Amino acid sequence: QSIISPNPRLHVSLDERRSSSKHPVASRLFDLMIAKKSNLCVAADFSSFDEVIKLAESIGPKIVVLKIHVDILEDFTLAKMKQLKKVAKSHEFLIMEDRKFADIANTVHQQFHGGVYQISEWADLVTAHPLPGPEMITHMFGDSSSDSRDTCGCVLILEMSTKNALTNPDYAKEGAKWGLMASDVVAGFVAQSPPDSDFSGWIQFTPGVNSASKTGDSKGQQYCSPAEAVLERGADIIIVGRGLINSSDVVATAENYRTEGWAALTQRITNP
Amino acid sequence: QSIISPNPRLHVSLDERRSSSKHPVASRLFDLMIAKKSNLCVAADFSSFDEVIKLAESIGPKIVVLKIHVDILEDFTLAKMKQLKKVAKSHEFLIMEDRKFADIANTVHQQFHGGVYQISEWADLVTAHPLPGPEMITHMFGDSSSDSRDTCGCVLILEMSTKNALTNPDYAKEGAKWGLMASDVVAGFVAQSPPDSDFSGWIQFTPGVNSASKTGDSKGQQYCSPAEAVLERGADIIIVGRGLINSSDVVATAENYRTEGWAALTQRITNP
Repeated sequence: QSIISPNPRLHVSLDERRSSSKHPVASRLFDLMIAKKSNLCVAADFSSFDEVIKLAESIGPKIVVLKIHVDILEDFTLAKMKQLKKVAKSHEFLIMEDRKFADIANTVHQQFHGGVYQISEWADLVTAHPLPGPEMITHMFGDSSSDSRDTCGCVLILEMSTKNALTNPDYAKEGAKWGLMASDVVAGFVAQSPPDSDFSGWIQFTPGVNSASKTGDSKGQQYCSPAEAVLERGADIIIVGRGLINSSDVVATAENYRTEGWAALTQRITNP
Repeated sequence: QSIISPNPRLHVSLDERRSSSKHPVASRLFDLMIAKKSNLCVAADFSSFDEVIKLAESIGPKIVVLKIHVDILEDFTLAKMKQLKKVAKSHEFLIMEDRKFADIANTVHQQFHGGVYQISEWADLVTAHPLPGPEMITHMFGDSSSDSRDTCGCVLILEMSTKNALTNPDYAKEGAKWGLMASDVVAGFVAQSPPDSDFSGWIQFTPGVNSASKTGDSKGQQYCSPAEAVLERGADIIIVGRGLINSSDVVATAENYRTEGWAALTQRITNP
């Protein structure tokens, strides 16, 4: 396995990267990775919030980020979110709302701060597509005095893992450029390959990681292994979903992904 | 004002287009347009569901589609949605949930059918970005026996109205191709210009219509007039938001937009 890009971010120590980070949530995530020896994010795609909380309680010590889709939870309440936040605090992981914002700035601002979910009140990280243009990214948090700028980091989706996704190299390049310009609100990005940038302070999340399946699902999703994600695709954080949450022993499976993912990351940094 | 494309869709009568339509919701929308002499869609971007319902009751007779963002409503309940559905039935307009789906098929399926909102239970139209690839479009409705295929039409976002949006001509072209391939679930599209296709059975929605402002908002949104939208950009349906809902007399303003929009559409069809 070889690293496809000479991007310096890939071979810098997490300590160094932490100190060049420009977002408090990114700094916190580097701290958690180092302390927990983990680069594992689990996608808890259940329709029951109780099940999400149960999962978080059991695998919390192994992960650094729990990724959720708040809008697939049939029993969502802000009280249950408080419960999940408590679990996150005690086991020290971040909560990422994978909202994939993709609207005009005025609307995204309302979707982020308002409605039933009040995402900005509890999310440590939230995903957004650069599709609508750079103004959405800079305006979703409101003015520069807004609290949520420090408590929640935007994670830009530069590339998707699905077949025939329209996130081509030009698209990803433009999105990365805007992300760097807004590094006071953007903590990282989702990608299948390292973007053309040597800024090491932001964090690459790579979804579609599954050790058991090479082929993907029947609906266009494509999978890769933890080592492949980290060594060949530039992932700092691996996102594991169905490969873990559907396994019979989620704790043992989480430990396996943590070990594999962390070994690959250590190898990439120490043996460039 | 001249029409920028020789696209035959633009000059075909609504009756003819209705008969070539392949989606029951598109057929219904052509019927409503003809019966109400209206091509007006209003974006009811309030944070209060009660206000949305109040607006719908007053402007219902003027519009053919009410566009909402269910996730900005602070007081959302399924009971209030039932109330809105009743208003929609009595005043004969469709409800479009502007969700802008943009995830992998497995997730979008859950976001569309599940969660607190149960969008597929009440939406006549729902928007989606082609960004994740064609599999999302075909799989969001479930298998071919699913009820929601007949009761809800997907509206693909081919182009956005914001500054520097990444929905460039290649993007729009690819999205349009997929939309046509999935014409059993796609009722129309959102665009700022007519796509490269002569299929007249689907319907173009154009947002960012505002007679009072030429400049847009301060966050990247750009506006155009009803006549510009219909005659120069190929809109079948004009989407008016802040230009109407913030006006002091919403009924009079709705009547103005209905008249202007309908006159432009009639002119485009009869004087090509």
